[in-house]
Amino acid sequence: MHTDLSEPQLWEHRSTLADPDGVDEFWARTLAEARAVGGPLRAEPVTTDLRTLEVHDVTFPGFGGEPVRAWLRRPVAALRGDAPLPVVVEYVGYGGGRGEPEERLLWASAGFAHLLVDTRGQGSGWSRGDTPDSGPAGPQVPGVMTRGVTSPETSYYRRFLTDAARAVDAARALPSVGVDVDPSRVAVMGTSQGGAAALAAGALVPDVAAVVAQVPFLCDVPRALAITDADPFHEVTRYLARHRSHVDAVLRTLAHVDGVVMARRGRAPARFSAALMDAICPPSTVFGAFHAYAGPKEIVVWPYNGHEGGETEDERGALAFLRHHLRHP
Amino acid sequence: MHTDLSEPQLWEHRSTLADPDGVDEFWARTLAEARAVGGPLRAEPVTTDLRTLEVHDVTFPGFGGEPVRAWLRRPVAALRGDAPLPVVVEYVGYGGGRGEPEERLLWASAGFAHLLVDTRGQGSGWSRGDTPDSGPAGPQVPGVMTRGVTSPETSYYRRFLTDAARAVDAARALPSVGVDVDPSRVAVMGTSQGGAAALAAGALVPDVAAVVAQVPFLCDVPRALAITDADPFHEVTRYLARHRSHVDAVLRTLAHVDGVVMARRGRAPARFSAALMDAICPPSTVFGAFHAYAGPKEIVVWPYNGHEGGETEDERGALAFLRHHLRHP
Amino acid sequence: MHTDLSEPQLWEHRSTLADPDGVDEFWARTLAEARAVGGPLRAEPVTTDLRTLEVHDVTFPGFGGEPVRAWLRRPVAALRGDAPLPVVVEYVGYGGGRGEPEERLLWASAGFAHLLVDTRGQGSGWSRGDTPDSGPAGPQVPGVMTRGVTSPETSYYRRFLTDAARAVDAARALPSVGVDVDPSRVAVMGTSQGGAAALAAGALVPDVAAVVAQVPFLCDVPRALAITDADPFHEVTRYLARHRSHVDAVLRTLAHVDGVVMARRGRAPARFSAALMDAICPPSTVFGAFHAYAGPKEIVVWPYNGHEGGETEDERGALAFLRHHLRHP
Amino acid sequence: MHTDLSEPQLWEHRSTLADPDGVDEFWARTLAEARAVGGPLRAEPVTTDLRTLEVHDVTFPGFGGEPVRAWLRRPVAALRGDAPLPVVVEYVGYGGGRGEPEERLLWASAGFAHLLVDTRGQGSGWSRGDTPDSGPAGPQVPGVMTRGVTSPETSYYRRFLTDAARAVDAARALPSVGVDVDPSRVAVMGTSQGGAAALAAGALVPDVAAVVAQVPFLCDVPRALAITDADPFHEVTRYLARHRSHVDAVLRTLAHVDGVVMARRGRAPARFSAALMDAICPPSTVFGAFHAYAGPKEIVVWPYNGHEGGETEDERGALAFLRHHLRHP
Amino acid sequence: MHTDLSEPQLWEHRSTLADPDGVDEFWARTLAEARAVGGPLRAEPVTTDLRTLEVHDVTFPGFGGEPVRAWLRRPVAALRGDAPLPVVVEYVGYGGGRGEPEERLLWASAGFAHLLVDTRGQGSGWSRGDTPDSGPAGPQVPGVMTRGVTSPETSYYRRFLTDAARAVDAARALPSVGVDVDPSRVAVMGTSQGGAAALAAGALVPDVAAVVAQVPFLCDVPRALAITDADPFHEVTRYLARHRSHVDAVLRTLAHVDGVVMARRGRAPARFSAALMDAICPPSTVFGAFHAYAGPKEIVVWPYNGHEGGETEDERGALAFLRHHLRHP
Amino acid sequence: MHTDLSEPQLWEHRSTLADPDGVDEFWARTLAEARAVGGPLRAEPVTTDLRTLEVHDVTFPGFGGEPVRAWLRRPVAALRGDAPLPVVVEYVGYGGGRGEPEERLLWASAGFAHLLVDTRGQGSGWSRGDTPDSGPAGPQVPGVMTRGVTSPETSYYRRFLTDAARAVDAARALPSVGVDVDPSRVAVMGTSQGGAAALAAGALVPDVAAVVAQVPFLCDVPRALAITDADPFHEVTRYLARHRSHVDAVLRTLAHVDGVVMARRGRAPARFSAALMDAICPPSTVFGAFHAYAGPKEIVVWPYNGHEGGETEDERGALAFLRHHLRHP
Repeated sequence: MHTDLSEPQLWEHRSTLADPDGVDEFWARTLAEARAVGGPLRAEPVTTDLRTLEVHDVTFPGFGGEPVRAWLRRPVAALRGDAPLPVVVEYVGYGGGRGEPEERLLWASAGFAHLLVDTRGQGSGWSRGDTPDSGPAGPQVPGVMTRGVTSPETSYYRRFLTDAARAVDAARALPSVGVDVDPSRVAVMGTSQGGAAALAAGALVPDVAAVVAQVPFLCDVPRALAITDADPFHEVTRYLARHRSHVDAVLRTLAHVDGVVMARRGRAPARFSAALMDAICPPSTVFGAFHAYAGPKEIVVWPYNGHEGGETEDERGALAFLRHHLRHP
Repeated sequence: MHTDLSEPQLWEHRSTLADPDGVDEFWARTLAEARAVGGPLRAEPVTTDLRTLEVHDVTFPGFGGEPVRAWLRRPVAALRGDAPLPVVVEYVGYGGGRGEPEERLLWASAGFAHLLVDTRGQGSGWSRGDTPDSGPAGPQVPGVMTRGVTSPETSYYRRFLTDAARAVDAARALPSVGVDVDPSRVAVMGTSQGGAAALAAGALVPDVAAVVAQVPFLCDVPRALAITDADPFHEVTRYLARHRSHVDAVLRTLAHVDGVVMARRGRAPARFSAALMDAICPPSTVFGAFHAYAGPKEIVVWPYNGHEGGETEDERGALAFLRHHLRHP
Repeated sequence: MHTDLSEPQLWEHRSTLADPDGVDEFWARTLAEARAVGGPLRAEPVTTDLRTLEVHDVTFPGFGGEPVRAWLRRPVAALRGDAPLPVVVEYVGYGGGRGEPEERLLWASAGFAHLLVDTRGQGSGWSRGDTPDSGPAGPQVPGVMTRGVTSPETSYYRRFLTDAARAVDAARALPSVGVDVDPSRVAVMGTSQGGAAALAAGALVPDVAAVVAQVPFLCDVPRALAITDADPFHEVTRYLARHRSHVDAVLRTLAHVDGVVMARRGRAPARFSAALMDAICPPSTVFGAFHAYAGPKEIVVWPYNGHEGGETEDERGALAFLRHHLRHP
Repeated sequence: MHTDLSEPQLWEHRSTLADPDGVDEFWARTLAEARAVGGPLRAEPVTTDLRTLEVHDVTFPGFGGEPVRAWLRRPVAALRGDAPLPVVVEYVGYGGGRGEPEERLLWASAGFAHLLVDTRGQGSGWSRGDTPDSGPAGPQVPGVMTRGVTSPETSYYRRFLTDAARAVDAARALPSVGVDVDPSRVAVMGTSQGGAAALAAGALVPDVAAVVAQVPFLCDVPRALAITDADPFHEVTRYLARHRSHVDAVLRTLAHVDGVVMARRGRAPARFSAALMDAICPPSTVFGAFHAYAGPKEIVVWPYNGHEGGETEDERGALAFLRHHLRHP
Repeated sequence: MHTDLSEPQLWEHRSTLADPDGVDEFWARTLAEARAVGGPLRAEPVTTDLRTLEVHDVTFPGFGGEPVRAWLRRPVAALRGDAPLPVVVEYVGYGGGRGEPEERLLWASAGFAHLLVDTRGQGSGWSRGDTPDSGPAGPQVPGVMTRGVTSPETSYYRRFLTDAARAVDAARALPSVGVDVDPSRVAVMGTSQGGAAALAAGALVPDVAAVVAQVPFLCDVPRALAITDADPFHEVTRYLARHRSHVDAVLRTLAHVDGVVMARRGRAPARFSAALMDAICPPSTVFGAFHAYAGPKEIVVWPYNGHEGGETEDERGALAFLRHHLRHP
Repeated sequence: MHTDLSEPQLWEHRSTLADPDGVDEFWARTLAEARAVGGPLRAEPVTTDLRTLEVHDVTFPGFGGEPVRAWLRRPVAALRGDAPLPVVVEYVGYGGGRGEPEERLLWASAGFAHLLVDTRGQGSGWSRGDTPDSGPAGPQVPGVMTRGVTSPETSYYRRFLTDAARAVDAARALPSVGVDVDPSRVAVMGTSQGGAAALAAGALVPDVAAVVAQVPFLCDVPRALAITDADPFHEVTRYLARHRSHVDAVLRTLAHVDGVVMARRGRAPARFSAALMDAICPPSTVFGAFHAYAGPKEIVVWPYNGHEGGETEDERGALAFLRHHLRHP
């Protein structure tokens, strides 16, 4: 059943979330600091059972220069041709990590260089990760939604989204560590939490070629808290049920990382998707970001799906969209 | 928590399920009839976004000559070399189908010809399918476990396992439709229901090179009914709760398709896996088949997993196992 | 709690479901074919423990002439008098069958000839059945909602509703096999799925004396999919979540069997019931059919009941309603 | 899955529950007091839609002379013949009541006089009742299991089982209010809580012709508390979790009404049934009573059923059993 | 997520529940009768481990003069000073009782005399009680909501609310049994069911100094039945689902004890609280009572809490509120 | 129902968990480092509504010298007498924190100085906390069980148990910040996770006067993983299901903090409790620690309770036990 507004209502709906004061300065400073501290970029070949693809184990400097892991997959040399490949940077969903080298083969098999970015401190749920989180973890609800949530400075998602932006920097720098890609053609994509990261990376890093945000999470958090009891949004509700005096601070913190706020800063062509039976990222929160998006945009609506959204059928659309915008037919 | 016996107990446990009278004649006749009716084999190239693999949409004659669908994936010609590739025939788990052409890329990316066989009448759950079932569907519990279950002749699993055996025939015949593979090197594999199909195909078709059965379903059904309430085994319980006079007939029917009975007829080297926290295919039912297996065998035990078993880590073991037995390093 | 609109809203609500093109021709052809193929009618006395009623095991030709089972119960001869009895044809709810001969004694004990019709392929849930389904079962979700659902021709409910219509024919023909009833006084009734069958039989067979549809299922399917997650409607949602390209075909198929479309073709006096806390057949779907009903009509609303509706209290009303319309005081 | 011991183990299992001191004196005094206080017996004809049966609304004096309701159903005079009918007294399951006059027609339709006894203070769950409970309701868990449970004198089940015994007295006295039955042929039966009542009535009232206890409740309570978390046994667990100092008193109280203790006092031929997948009345508690039963006995085991047990198939066996012991072929 | 109206809507919402005819006479008569029958007041010192507080075990005459238990806690003499203390009479939530003497120490530790009133017939759930209920318990759903619910005279809540009013009388009479408190300064408070009792005591007993009703239960019952399926409101729904002909009588009975009706009779300053995610006492039912309240009033809204409401943070507000109105700084 | 062994079996059961190599050196070094880094102790008076107790907001140096919060509650001066009070140090259960100053008043009201220690990084579930955790949070399952779990050095529970030991040091140093208590009389106690902390503090800090561990958590972790699926033990299972290669490292880490290993190092008189229906800390894990306990010991068994154990009734026993061992009658 529909978990939220009907499709006609979604086309009319607009988020009422306001930009928090100083959000642009906050992110400018955050990224400047992360870039200033820098840190090594590494890409080590991995021996796998794969014969059509080659895989590098990438480590790049994220928030605070902390090492973040990723897999870079691409077709073997015999298939690559002479021109360097464009890069699709992908972020993953809540609870997961970059997984095993032999997983998530679609994008490289489709001819792209594919940088699948790990998620700090998660990577123990539906897929495995290798990247720790840092920073004090104040009293919090289990999960990462409320880790450091009393201030934008200490928020988990400040670190996570900085990693996301720095992953684009890392993708562009891969030739410096011997992985020949085209730094001028980098796109970002992700599903759910990964979609939130893609929106943020597209907003925070200039000249991203395109953004794909499939059933993105973390959009219009205040509305989400009012209309769904599903985790991970509900982690925030549980926190506020206990820390009643933190409501303003928490909502202010989360506004700094909200997909709606990021969308207002997006300039690259963007493709969204939403599902009318999605109880985890209700479609009105996605449409809130979509309508706010400042660049060229399109959205696919899946009328009978939940949070799984369009799955491979969404990927097909994303492949066509990115082939076009990355000029990689 | 453990859902069944402890690992030391599993190594001692033996299934008490007896072979049903005439089971060998039953299967010999069934396969002979299916081969006699024959039917066309087709393999049509599919246009996909993939650049490292090519995909054929295969249709082969299954039970009663009815058309069964499959995807044949293999590396593109530039990567294949001159020698025809060995084939890994894979069957899928309950509720699913062969999925989309762009899914399940591991085995072809690892250098094998990979024939992913659709499942008749399922293919609407965790992955999509394109193959209908046939035959009368007597009063039954939703699902396929009890479709036609009052007699081995009409049982759904007679049709499904015949398809599984005929898929091996089809794999060997692919060169006849222009897909150059090595018919002398064909292995079968599957997970859960797919593992049951692999055990059956290995038992029913001579000269299969190897069998991989990961957390296989459909083993020692009478014991499973007594120790788990999870579907799909529980479909049978619900049926017998209502059709109380059918107990003997139903258990006799299911013995004809039971993995333990099939295992006694296995000759190819086989690799099993089992998970100690698996409530869907409890490990004692898997060990029942493993101990009964008549050929060379090994088993991997995942102590902290449920029915997901070893996932990619199981696949890595299976890749090594099949590289060895298919002589495809 | 209310699962749907309030009662005042229900009285205003109208279904927006349109008749599918050619639906009248579809059903005319379907029934003509079923009648053309014909098939034997049988009624065999059953020995039971009952002393006040006698029971016949009836087999009649349904869709495609396939044998469908039913129980015919009526008072023993000593109580029947000279005049042949009117017949109440009853259809049963999802998952069930005609049950045991000793069950469902109310209508015969109340002095009617009562033909309780089995349900093809179900009969393994809350009551037992003896009638198989036929026809290819394409990839489907467990249950019958999506069996053959890509086309009206292959839809399970085409077969089921044809059986329902042919049961009226069979009831009228009972004197030909020695069961003396009055063919001019035949009414149809049912609860939930049985109510859907009653609406269809009343629409498709001329001169049915009356229709009773208690909390009927299968009305206004598109709306039901949007407002409930309860099975069996939810089977369709799960199918469409996986078979995303089939939405139009599936909705078109289901419109051919929708209770709203049938209601527009009803002419006999009809009695509906609906329950305000029904999550399985939400009351707005029932009211959709009720408001569309073309003949004389009444509806009973149960404000504090779920899908159980009015149970024996509904039956009392139905008894009075049918005594009147069957002229059998 | 099996919820308890396997069938071979059940045949070996014996309850360790001891008779509480003075239990015989307790019940002798209780019944003597109930009979001494007496009270009116009434049987008023009810107008119903039934044409094959006639129904009386019976009121008889139960515990403390309080009025208890029942339905007396029997074939209409035209079918009864000259000899008075034997009576089957039936008690109902937890939460229910005597229901509507038009419900539960089997036993009268099978030719018996059938006295369906209401349950004090329940009758608001799966069927409706009309009889209040009396007596102080000390702090208790919702439900009746712990009402007055600190002492045998105040226990709900003292009152309920006294009603059950007095129902037999009432059945025998029906001719005094113009309902002609044979007082020398009275049997008792029931399912679940009704089975507990039947065991008690058979133990407490001399010369009951036979006892049928289908999946009886309230047997070997201490064992039940240790092996099941299902209500209504679990009401006692919740009470003891809160009233920790009442353990001895509560177990002593419940021993006075336990089916095992009653079974030791049974003399009439008895038929039990048990179900191996019954989580509500686990089969070892039923077998505890069965093995303790002091009279002639038989037991039917349903291997794939839960607490629904054998339903109509159990009833068929009960009909044959009672036809024999009530000499009513 | 929000379980009911948004906060702006709550400020506009008004209950449509009408006062039942004769409700004032009903309560005047009920209380007059309870006072006329009278009964002993006792207060016995309890030996506990507490060193800062002393505790009396209080027994006072409630409905029908029946003994109701309570704990009276207050600071030890060394801390009390010369002036008698004001009394806070507290009522407890559904299922609980007065608990152990060593529990619920806040109010006495804060310097008040605190009379914690037991709940008749409950006291076996989240806390323990010692007070039985009386009166016939007609056919009912487990719990107390439907005990005697067919008439205001026999309703459980008539007895419970009379106890609540009589607890105020008892508090004022404590000096007569040697517990020196100030009878002119008595306030009432409670959470959930306890809040319903506080509203009633404030309405029924003159000169109560203040009322605190935290997330009060039993307000606008007809609306609650329509918008929530949570117990204990849902007990009424289940009763009406079975006793369909009792709807009018039951709603009339419950209107006599409804918090909205009581609120219209409140005169003392009152403090309410409500929680926007409360599914048990939905906030619109609380606001219904709040808006109807006839005296000075305030309400605290907890936006991210369920039925736990504000817990200690609500208590802090209540302490300040009662310090002011009881003139006890 | 029993969730684990029967009571007679529990008395025979012994844990097979071995001490990990070097565990004593590990803890000696850990505590030495924590003490070496030191840090400020603070105790600031808190203004509350309480009139019988006074409360200090305590901050003490825990693991790595990091500030940990606590509440120190004690009777007001007028009630304390001249002698300094003994201190009961209490630790809290999983998910909670030290709560509000006005909560958990029992121990101070009973005449003890009561230091209620906050829990790092939790404090957002059933009660509120104010203390952050530190240290990298590697890929982990939500919650703290698997935070840093690949090594004893980085394990969350190393930090938590060090805090617990340092809380005893802090209690003894309270006179240095103006809170006059008797440093020679300090006991530790806790429930569930708090019980694990009490066992550890008693093992790691010399001369603790007594230990109370009510239904303690974290005992015999390998057995717990095999017999329960309840969180928080199940967090470890989920982690190992995903990080399959970490099994040995994780079990080795958790052995360093296991209650069984701690119990072998206990010397103070200890009081345990266990509950036979506890699914969260199954009683055999508690008995494993109890039987291993090296000092004088006693255990209370609650036969009908789950993880709530004996609640206030356990507290009463603990009060008597600690009055005796702290010589504070």
